[in-house]
Amino acid sequence: MEIFVYHTPDQVPDLSKQARKGGLQLEMPACAIVIDVLRATTTMATALQSGAEAIQVFADIDELFRISQRWPAEQRLLAGERGGEKLEDFDLGNSPSECTPARVGGKRLFMSTTNGTRALERVRTVPILLTAALTNRWAVVRYLLEEQPRTVWIVAAGWRGGFSLEDTICAGAIACALRVERGSDCAGDDESIAAMALFDQWQSRLPQLLRYAHHGRGLAALGCDVDLDYCARIDSVNVVPVQIEPGVLKAAELAGI
Amino acid sequence: MEIFVYHTPDQVPDLSKQARKGGLQLEMPACAIVIDVLRATTTMATALQSGAEAIQVFADIDELFRISQRWPAEQRLLAGERGGEKLEDFDLGNSPSECTPARVGGKRLFMSTTNGTRALERVRTVPILLTAALTNRWAVVRYLLEEQPRTVWIVAAGWRGGFSLEDTICAGAIACALRVERGSDCAGDDESIAAMALFDQWQSRLPQLLRYAHHGRGLAALGCDVDLDYCARIDSVNVVPVQIEPGVLKAAELAGI
Repeated sequence: MEIFVYHTPDQVPDLSKQARKGGLQLEMPACAIVIDVLRATTTMATALQSGAEAIQVFADIDELFRISQRWPAEQRLLAGERGGEKLEDFDLGNSPSECTPARVGGKRLFMSTTNGTRALERVRTVPILLTAALTNRWAVVRYLLEEQPRTVWIVAAGWRGGFSLEDTICAGAIACALRVERGSDCAGDDESIAAMALFDQWQSRLPQLLRYAHHGRGLAALGCDVDLDYCARIDSVNVVPVQIEPGVLKAAELAGI
Repeated sequence: MEIFVYHTPDQVPDLSKQARKGGLQLEMPACAIVIDVLRATTTMATALQSGAEAIQVFADIDELFRISQRWPAEQRLLAGERGGEKLEDFDLGNSPSECTPARVGGKRLFMSTTNGTRALERVRTVPILLTAALTNRWAVVRYLLEEQPRTVWIVAAGWRGGFSLEDTICAGAIACALRVERGSDCAGDDESIAAMALFDQWQSRLPQLLRYAHHGRGLAALGCDVDLDYCARIDSVNVVPVQIEPGVLKAAELAGI
């Protein structure tokens, strides 16, 4: 297994062309993992663990309204934020704390977020598409060990188009766990090596790291402290959101969980 | 002092406009530091330590030939590479091992390299412009402590347009030393925090890290093992190359060295 890390969706090569990264000719990946720790992919894993039927993601808000209308009203929830704040007329923002079983059980979440949606769009044609957060890191690693994709692209949603500490450390957390489980190095590029060093250095201080990150500081200023602590709880959720049709994610069945 | 790290020259905001990074409005920096550990900025520091009069850098090879012709033949050397290999008709490639006092003493080096030149061009209008490598890390830190620029942009040359491990760890080495010397955190962005973690994790294994990096593997395949070991020798050179006119770098006078 070989892991390549992209710091932002914009850095992901166009999947319709022959991909290159640095000096390397890349094969198309068997698997892509989208990470948006603060907070889209953390929220997705929590919603599915709480019994949500599926998450359907949209870049375009009008399309979200249009498609969600076709769904029975009692089985749908609109979830979305821009710049960390809930969208008007939406049921949920982008906070995992809202995703209780009572609230989301049996429902489909129609979702649009600032960074995470764009990352998912960029790799939606990859055969296996997962989302990961710190909370479901271990479940994602187990899924990879079962599926054994040869090439994995980890795509960080980033923050405002740039590098983000919280997504990069989550990429490192996945790569570090795979290195231990497989007894061999999976780093395909320099980014994955640096991400592993970040996790090695900060793994015992994840809540602090999320507050050190610029995105986390912004969320703390919006009063999202509870979310920051929750998003830092590594390996606390046993669900892997997997794309089952374009833009629709459901909880994967994991053997032995 | 606040440090911002750019992984590639392309990520540096256009200096003629109001700059933003992530969610931040940036003030124009008082100081920029260009890093190309493998090998342009390592070579520059070595050449100046060996008594070279100056380094004059060029993106365009024709311009390099044209301008260098105006210099007395016995006082000039043409230095350049593309893809790690010496350019035809040039006196030197891009290896610090060529820069002995006998070879470069009193000479001006007219230089063009694959990655480093482009990074220097991108920030050539910044008031204080330095180059750094692992070898002269400490000299650069001392210079910063003397000058006390409020904002410092560290620009990694990167490799083939992408993130490079060796330049990022050098950025982290500078930021870590400043944190210790000043007794306070200088990290202005998420990239600088991640770069510090990389240095913290790998500082005792720098030769190994340079060989782990994709650029380093490429150079090892070209037979540049001696250069890799040299480029990893942190704090071994007491020279800071500083731009004294656009594109021309000379050794700064450091108090007490």
